[in-house]
Amino acid sequence: MKYDILETKERVLADNDKVAADLRKFLKERNIFFFNLMASPGAGKTTLLKRTIEELGHELKFAVMEADVDSDVDAAAISALGVDVIQLHSGGLCHMDADMTARGIEAFLGDGILDEKWPDILVLENIGNLVCPAEFDVGANKRVMILSVPEGHDKPLKYPLMFQVSDIILVNKIDTKEVFDFSEEEFEKNVRKQNERAPIIYLSAKTGEGFDAWIDWLRGEAICE
Amino acid sequence: MKYDILETKERVLADNDKVAADLRKFLKERNIFFFNLMASPGAGKTTLLKRTIEELGHELKFAVMEADVDSDVDAAAISALGVDVIQLHSGGLCHMDADMTARGIEAFLGDGILDEKWPDILVLENIGNLVCPAEFDVGANKRVMILSVPEGHDKPLKYPLMFQVSDIILVNKIDTKEVFDFSEEEFEKNVRKQNERAPIIYLSAKTGEGFDAWIDWLRGEAICE
Repeated sequence: MKYDILETKERVLADNDKVAADLRKFLKERNIFFFNLMASPGAGKTTLLKRTIEELGHELKFAVMEADVDSDVDAAAISALGVDVIQLHSGGLCHMDADMTARGIEAFLGDGILDEKWPDILVLENIGNLVCPAEFDVGANKRVMILSVPEGHDKPLKYPLMFQVSDIILVNKIDTKEVFDFSEEEFEKNVRKQNERAPIIYLSAKTGEGFDAWIDWLRGEAICE
Repeated sequence: MKYDILETKERVLADNDKVAADLRKFLKERNIFFFNLMASPGAGKTTLLKRTIEELGHELKFAVMEADVDSDVDAAAISALGVDVIQLHSGGLCHMDADMTARGIEAFLGDGILDEKWPDILVLENIGNLVCPAEFDVGANKRVMILSVPEGHDKPLKYPLMFQVSDIILVNKIDTKEVFDFSEEEFEKNVRKQNERAPIIYLSAKTGEGFDAWIDWLRGEAICE
């Protein structure tokens, strides 16, 4: 049967980009590599971050901003690794913007955490969402996204902006590939319609399979920044 | 190490509720049961809807509004079942509101689809997102949410509003339960902190396991409405 298309147009982003640029400059001067970690709910952001800190934490100092609509469960999990972490509550909003991120960094500074010794790597674990976080430059050097195998290989078609803005795409839960109808070939075809350059790394934050490639990429970025 | 909480406060909802109430009245007068289907990306909204139409479509007439940031893949899949479907593009927004929903219904009317014979069940497949869609009453009689097993049993803690506003919670991909560390007991404990009444149904839209309970619920609601 027939179907039509309705377009309902979006409003413009405020002066977010200016705040983001200032933030990037501030961090650059302190040799801090800052990445914005984005994914759907349950794609494995915190699990990936935990393993990343376990594998790289002895070489490089991490500081983490955990953004959530509510609850502190992720901050508590990261804090247990002995890493400086701050919990940001969005109060219902579905993304972080540059201003909220700046306030997180100010809170770190207020606590004297960043004054003591600047971290090598600053992470924003964004709110679980494939739509809104993609729209906001939070001042990060790189945008890292996770797509988990159970979500399906068609997602680049449905959340195009997220795939367009990401600098690296991590496909998590690869250990469950046999259970789901996930085609790497189809996925890559769909990604390349949106993004020609971002590396795609297949891994499992649970088993560690494929994790080396991600750690190598991150180490390289953090050292070069 | 220490961590703090920042609260960044949200703005109020406009006159969305009035439009939603008008819409509900309009549908009520025509004996149409309208449900708002919400979930994360890749939780199985379209697959669930397809099986629902296959199992119930011979008894009850469906009409479907497919909301997406971009692409028509879901509308095409539903259309292939011979059901009236309209694709709504949000132009980057992460949710549908009552006004956008009303415009979808107007488009149906413009095409003469609703004049010919009113459907028994109208569905809005909302944008894949556990945050923003929860905030907007779209004029539906019931809010149906899907949480898929791979997302994890802690999600009610992290996306409280979605669990609070849902009238029924479907736990999809139950056929993959062995692969993930998903505890039904923990999940129910977490859900009940947010929502004391909503029934929880475990099912697999892929294999059909547990699907009867959902079909029975939907049939009951559609006939009683």
